[in-house]
Amino acid sequence: MRHLFRHPHAEITGIYGPADELGPITKFFPLLSKTVDMDQVLFDPAAVAAQADLAMLCVPHKVAMAYVPQLRQAGVRVIDWSADYRLKDAAEYEEWYCPHTDRAGLAEAVYGLPEYFAADIAQAGLVANPGCYPTCTALALAPVLQAGLVEPSGIVVNSISGVSGAGRKPSQSNHYPQRNENFEPYGVGNHRHMPEMEQTLTAILGRPVELLFQPHLCPMDRGMLSTIYCRPTGNITTEQVLKVLQQAYAQAPFVRVRTDTLPATKDVATTNFCDLTARVAKGRVILFSALDNLVKGASGQAVQAMNIVCGYPETTGLISN
Amino acid sequence: MRHLFRHPHAEITGIYGPADELGPITKFFPLLSKTVDMDQVLFDPAAVAAQADLAMLCVPHKVAMAYVPQLRQAGVRVIDWSADYRLKDAAEYEEWYCPHTDRAGLAEAVYGLPEYFAADIAQAGLVANPGCYPTCTALALAPVLQAGLVEPSGIVVNSISGVSGAGRKPSQSNHYPQRNENFEPYGVGNHRHMPEMEQTLTAILGRPVELLFQPHLCPMDRGMLSTIYCRPTGNITTEQVLKVLQQAYAQAPFVRVRTDTLPATKDVATTNFCDLTARVAKGRVILFSALDNLVKGASGQAVQAMNIVCGYPETTGLISN
Amino acid sequence: MRHLFRHPHAEITGIYGPADELGPITKFFPLLSKTVDMDQVLFDPAAVAAQADLAMLCVPHKVAMAYVPQLRQAGVRVIDWSADYRLKDAAEYEEWYCPHTDRAGLAEAVYGLPEYFAADIAQAGLVANPGCYPTCTALALAPVLQAGLVEPSGIVVNSISGVSGAGRKPSQSNHYPQRNENFEPYGVGNHRHMPEMEQTLTAILGRPVELLFQPHLCPMDRGMLSTIYCRPTGNITTEQVLKVLQQAYAQAPFVRVRTDTLPATKDVATTNFCDLTARVAKGRVILFSALDNLVKGASGQAVQAMNIVCGYPETTGLISN
Amino acid sequence: MRHLFRHPHAEITGIYGPADELGPITKFFPLLSKTVDMDQVLFDPAAVAAQADLAMLCVPHKVAMAYVPQLRQAGVRVIDWSADYRLKDAAEYEEWYCPHTDRAGLAEAVYGLPEYFAADIAQAGLVANPGCYPTCTALALAPVLQAGLVEPSGIVVNSISGVSGAGRKPSQSNHYPQRNENFEPYGVGNHRHMPEMEQTLTAILGRPVELLFQPHLCPMDRGMLSTIYCRPTGNITTEQVLKVLQQAYAQAPFVRVRTDTLPATKDVATTNFCDLTARVAKGRVILFSALDNLVKGASGQAVQAMNIVCGYPETTGLISN
Repeated sequence: MRHLFRHPHAEITGIYGPADELGPITKFFPLLSKTVDMDQVLFDPAAVAAQADLAMLCVPHKVAMAYVPQLRQAGVRVIDWSADYRLKDAAEYEEWYCPHTDRAGLAEAVYGLPEYFAADIAQAGLVANPGCYPTCTALALAPVLQAGLVEPSGIVVNSISGVSGAGRKPSQSNHYPQRNENFEPYGVGNHRHMPEMEQTLTAILGRPVELLFQPHLCPMDRGMLSTIYCRPTGNITTEQVLKVLQQAYAQAPFVRVRTDTLPATKDVATTNFCDLTARVAKGRVILFSALDNLVKGASGQAVQAMNIVCGYPETTGLISN
Repeated sequence: MRHLFRHPHAEITGIYGPADELGPITKFFPLLSKTVDMDQVLFDPAAVAAQADLAMLCVPHKVAMAYVPQLRQAGVRVIDWSADYRLKDAAEYEEWYCPHTDRAGLAEAVYGLPEYFAADIAQAGLVANPGCYPTCTALALAPVLQAGLVEPSGIVVNSISGVSGAGRKPSQSNHYPQRNENFEPYGVGNHRHMPEMEQTLTAILGRPVELLFQPHLCPMDRGMLSTIYCRPTGNITTEQVLKVLQQAYAQAPFVRVRTDTLPATKDVATTNFCDLTARVAKGRVILFSALDNLVKGASGQAVQAMNIVCGYPETTGLISN
Repeated sequence: MRHLFRHPHAEITGIYGPADELGPITKFFPLLSKTVDMDQVLFDPAAVAAQADLAMLCVPHKVAMAYVPQLRQAGVRVIDWSADYRLKDAAEYEEWYCPHTDRAGLAEAVYGLPEYFAADIAQAGLVANPGCYPTCTALALAPVLQAGLVEPSGIVVNSISGVSGAGRKPSQSNHYPQRNENFEPYGVGNHRHMPEMEQTLTAILGRPVELLFQPHLCPMDRGMLSTIYCRPTGNITTEQVLKVLQQAYAQAPFVRVRTDTLPATKDVATTNFCDLTARVAKGRVILFSALDNLVKGASGQAVQAMNIVCGYPETTGLISN
Repeated sequence: MRHLFRHPHAEITGIYGPADELGPITKFFPLLSKTVDMDQVLFDPAAVAAQADLAMLCVPHKVAMAYVPQLRQAGVRVIDWSADYRLKDAAEYEEWYCPHTDRAGLAEAVYGLPEYFAADIAQAGLVANPGCYPTCTALALAPVLQAGLVEPSGIVVNSISGVSGAGRKPSQSNHYPQRNENFEPYGVGNHRHMPEMEQTLTAILGRPVELLFQPHLCPMDRGMLSTIYCRPTGNITTEQVLKVLQQAYAQAPFVRVRTDTLPATKDVATTNFCDLTARVAKGRVILFSALDNLVKGASGQAVQAMNIVCGYPETTGLISN
């Protein structure tokens, strides 16, 4: 909401929620006071259609695919933040999530990673806003895979995320005295972002990409960093890999290729930037990628996609926030 | 449990819990593995009496006063960590908490602040383990009140606590992304530790003490610091106040009076120490008091009282943990 | 720089530093890459005058009063972030800081607290950007003093600050392993913001205000919260105090008076808002005030003053950042 | 010092430092007040020999190899916390550190990892206390390498450490506002613990082990976690790997093999435990290893070695701290 409030061409025409969470939005988010002072009202696709050209749908997976058809039928373009429209193959979705009830939506949806699918996004009625880990990983791997510098299999993606990645719902695991000063792995071999990464990179490369993804929870609010280990296809230097990254993102406003220093989560915090670099060491290519899971990994990327959908410059309302 | 495990004369003979939290204690606290590898079994006063001389009762208020009479009747000495036996006046207890159902226990209970009530604790069958804030405050204020250096009214106690003070139960307020990097006040004018402070200091001084207590939540695991503002009764210097504190605690193994530097929560973290100092500035006496809310403010103080109850040296199992 | 970069009417025409800190600004602040990609060049008042209408002077006290006269003579309007022009009385400045070498500047300078001195700021050539603690304190106290609700003496200001308040220079005290999980007081009776608070409130009230200020360091990046204890002048309710605050700031875009809830530092983080509330308890009026020491306590307030100096709406470039 | 103070058979007979850091040890570490209230005096090998059977030498590399010969000649057994005696091959030491000036010491030194070299430690006059990362890594990898479950090359060791691992000296990088909420990699391909890991595992396995080690800095005080990716030598299940770990450490008091849950740094904080587990996923064996870099990664392991050197049970003074 802060991104939209600041956006010069966007207007928040309504905020919608479930029956038990209605009323002033500042009751839930006091920080919005004197900026977005609106009431959250009951979700109603007709009302949305009457008021808005585009909906940001921020509900859990399964709920999203119940709402999307209603919004689409009412003529509203949708950017969906859930996982429901990210995996193009319904069977794969059902293996990792639950039965899929909106095949039509699945067929229509465009994966909202602007650095690779901007042309599709520009035409889209339904955009699947990518997961945070897949964004962080794909931006690093795609260019070196496309350039044929590394093998498309046996890749190890070691990632960490700030705790906001786990959502707003209190849990024993993220109760402050449990989580603070506590670093730990989770989701070994079964995190749902792993197939999303493979699908995205396979689509970009045009042939199968296979990787192992291992996430960890880091005691901080926001920030994501992936350390990616690849086998080079031949003799290669750090400089060559960096050059490929630089060329790939020469025109990308939100990707910054670092050469002399390494990415750090604080350097991208509250921004829509993804910072990348690469090093060759002991016969491996190591890629480092950092972004803010709440911005380039969620809200910022959604606004970036909205800009493309609506025909605004990609950076509108986003640079230097 | 870590304090008792390390204690040379204590043996943990049983761990008891409610029906829905039984089984290996390491399931709830993995950090106890290879130290306290016991099962938590259903609470049963007869079983406790058969196995133990003394019970550490760590349940919420209201639950405690249901268990204490059973344990006392079975002949078990009890150190109760709840608030149920801290306020001697049942009417006052009921004003701040709920109806009190164990007046006999209330009459028997001794307030477990060893620095002031060691003689009573030595004879006690039931010890009310003091609140963390009242311990932190009373240790600082008692000597200067007793020495007549400051007025016993109009005192302001400004305190902060680490988040562990709020317990283990997850809440929106202490969900990591909400609590981290977030400092805030709570309980304005109505925190239940305020009457406990007044009662304790009134008992020590022998005449009414009146104060205003304002707690705040600080984004860290453990640690408590009180900044206490008093009006001096006459002309007084920092040196005079420090001397009074030093004399008061010359024999107290767990109170450290600092002179040249100020208390900091990290200097007492994981220890049973309370660090104190005083300064006179702009016509006020300012007292600073720091302790670890989980040790001197809870478990360590309970073991200190247990030592006194059982006739061991006060510091047994506690110094340098 | 991020505020200015985003500001629709501001342009950063040059960044100046000392001889040993020249070169790409992103070398020192990687987070500015792809936004403010400029070189920091050697400070030269003539160059500044040639390029800029207004200078943001962010140097330590004593250095500031060496640069200001040069900039003013060159015709550049200055917003000075140091303490050099905050205390109007040179003798008082010299008591707390060091000899003052720019009496002319002192006479010209306007104290840049927009909520109280906007008319003066609008005419100013030299604005003294207020200290963070004084801003936080004055915004809370001024209305209740002006309304005669509380005594102008015997006030206790208990404040906490995030660690960024101590600056960028590494120190043992703020080395991460020393500062993390560590809350502590400092500057007892001798913090330089105490006379600034008294001067500001005395100027606003029109008669002497006396207070005791006690700061503490809190283990978080940013955020400031003051808990202020006052004696009421007569019988008074929480509602009456809240009403006075609401009326005082009805037109102030950056002050938010909270009624049902209390201020928390995270609700103002990265914004230019100051959140206030009041409660009457145990015969005292307690005021709570929270702001981001880096924004409303520094950069945001400087841009707010710049807006007034330049005739832009006060909120330009600042709301919803 | 806290470990030694608590140790039933150890007595701290002297604390020695450089000329500019003499005086009460509590001046540097206020938390030691009322426990270790000694003066730090000028280092003098003869004085140490006169007072002590064994020295804990906690100085930087290069300084250590200047002191060790003096202490050894005076007949003092030494546990050296620096890197100076960890790499057995002087040429390799000199490649990663600096010229080595004590070849005799190098020949005498025993690598102090008790789980693998206890017999040698028991006879040692000079023990090289292992690095934190190598301890964390070797304990996880050694059993699966010895059992032939994974390839001894192509191993990727992805590790994170709390900030205390970087030492007590303030730096821009670990200044609180820079380090807090900031996760970042460092030492790509050139961390000095990499050859130490390879040497240790090669010694244990009896043939060359090759690995890539990548450390990261995590914003917390203490704690270390390694996520280790290996290629299995054949078909293998999680259960088989866990069984190998359990058998390897059945008698090891400080290694805990977890089966159903994953290691987390908070579960080992302030203890001498190393928590391990393994999972097979997507054709890889993933090992997870966690310890407290200040205890099992430094002080606790040194005391564990001291116990062995002195003939005390290995756990003396260490369990449940």
